[in-house]
Order: sequence, then structure tokens, then C-alpha cells
Amino acid sequence: MRIVLIAAQSLDGFITRHDEPGTAFTSPEDKAHFRAALAGFDACLFGSGTYRVSRVFIRAQFPDHPLRVVLTRSPERFAADAVPGKLEFTSAAPAAIADDLRSRGIQQCALLGGSHAHSLFLDAGLVDEIWLTIEPLLFGGGTPLLARHANLRLELQSVERLGAHPLLLKYRVSR
Amino acid sequence: MRIVLIAAQSLDGFITRHDEPGTAFTSPEDKAHFRAALAGFDACLFGSGTYRVSRVFIRAQFPDHPLRVVLTRSPERFAADAVPGKLEFTSAAPAAIADDLRSRGIQQCALLGGSHAHSLFLDAGLVDEIWLTIEPLLFGGGTPLLARHANLRLELQSVERLGAHPLLLKYRVSR
Repeated sequence: MRIVLIAAQSLDGFITRHDEPGTAFTSPEDKAHFRAALAGFDACLFGSGTYRVSRVFIRAQFPDHPLRVVLTRSPERFAADAVPGKLEFTSAAPAAIADDLRSRGIQQCALLGGSHAHSLFLDAGLVDEIWLTIEPLLFGGGTPLLARHANLRLELQSVERLGAHPLLLKYRVSR
Repeated sequence: MRIVLIAAQSLDGFITRHDEPGTAFTSPEDKAHFRAALAGFDACLFGSGTYRVSRVFIRAQFPDHPLRVVLTRSPERFAADAVPGKLEFTSAAPAAIADDLRSRGIQQCALLGGSHAHSLFLDAGLVDEIWLTIEPLLFGGGTPLLARHANLRLELQSVERLGAHPLLLKYRVSR
């Protein structure tokens, strides 16, 4: 199973503009890329912060969309939202989550934020690729791409212009 | 006079690796690009923190190199190092520094960090372009590209691969 971290950030590395939750800052070109890219995945992983921001949108997408797994310390708090096989909540460790998804036949898994989820899976050595949209913006503050110190080397796979100014960079995580 | 911010950062926006001063993390390809790019400038601006880290290197380059202006709150502390027309220290505001350089016939000025110097000149609307090397690294912490919140829109001018994995992105700052 391949795990791909998919995110959009300002040039200076912030996945939110200052304290604004969500990704209202991203370009129409990135939004179109994101929708198209997700069609290639049979599972998505994200944190409960991301779930809270996008809850209405995520729940409106049943039943067409693939398995979504929300990382939370308190899965019981989301029991009313859970739909097994469609929308699940877990406090398991990254390796256990990956094993479970693999055992269920998932082959392509997207990791969709936020910074804590990124760090959790990167620190566990479970992220194979990073697909990062660089918006032509400088924020000087906001939620960083990663929640914790890291020291990871990447291999640039491709560079694509999404329209005039946003860039899509794809990297493989070096082992 | 054109002012170009030239920097190298990790993919997630840090111009130092964690608390390590300097830019030991940058690739040989970026170092070569940086040397070649500087040859096109007749003045360089940087903060006193950058000066302290690179003092021996900077002073070893007399007399071939262009005017270097160091931004500091206490120019008098550096009086022994100052060489008028070669290495100057100033506590003047960005607009006054730019006016002074312009009046002396400077046409191409490079802004070389650190994050406080970047924010000072960007906030004053004095930066025309940003030439940013993106190293294929994730640090999750370090000195950010900017020292303060900003909300700036850029225009992507060019994308160049510096070898296999580092990227050189050139942006114009939108007015």
C-alpha cells in the first residue's frame, strides 16, 4: 500500500493563512487538482481537526467516496458520525492503521492533514510520497506543514505548473 | 533600483535546520547558483545575525566584491569592521537605505537574510523579486523565511531544476 501526503501551502510553508482554519487560500487550480487526484485513492486519512473543518462537506459525499479514516484520541466522541467502511474514527498507532488498511485490500491511501497527522505518519516512516501545491503567497505565520522537528530527505519526482502561478511538486520520501 | 530577496529553504519553509546557524544544509548546486547569481548585483543587504555567521568569509572577499550593507540596531558596535563603500553598517529605515543606495548609482541590490531583514524590506514594499531555492528537505522547525505575519501575493516567473532535486523558483512580488 502506498501512502501519499497531499497538501497545499504558501511558499513559506504554511497550510493555513495565519489562524484561519481550512484552505480558503488555495487557488481554483489547486482545488481542481485535489479533486482529480483523490479519485486515484481508495482511502483517505486525516486528523480530527481537519474533519471538524470539513465535516459537512465530507458527509455530503456519501456514498460515492472511498473509505475515510479520521485520526483522533477520542474515537468515542465521534461514534454518532461513524459509518463502518465509509467513515471511521481511530486512535490506533500509524503502523496499526496502515496494517489494517492493507489487510482490507487498500492500495492507495491519501494523507490529508493536518500537521500532526503529517508528522505522525512521516515519523513512523510510512509516507511514500508528498504531493505539495505551492501557492504564490507568503503568510509569515499559520499552521506549519509539520507539527514537529524532522530531518527528512526527499527526491524530486516532478514539477507541474497548475495554471500561471501555483506549482505542484511531487517528491518521494528517501528511506 | 531592483531589490531581489535571495534565499534557500527546506520544502517546509525554513532557512536554517532547527537551531543550526548558517546554511550548511544547502546543496552544492545551490551554492554554485548563489555565487553565480551574486555576480549580477552591485550591492548586498543583510542582517547582523547573517553577518556574524559569515563574517570571516565576507571579510576574506575584499576587495573584489560589491558594496555590502549590514542592517543592525547598533552600527557603532561594528565600527572596527566598517570599510566605507565596501562594508557598511546602518540602523536606517529600509526606505532610507534604498534611497541612499539609489543615490549612489546602485541598480541591482540583493537582500540576503535573515528572516528579520526579509520582513523589514517586504513590509516596506521594497522587494521586487524573490529567488528561492527549495532544497529537498523537511525540517519541521528552524528559522522561518519571514519573521512576521504577512499576506503577500507573488507571481511565478520561472522554475529551474538545480541538479536532480533542488529547485530554483523566481517570483515577482505583486503590488
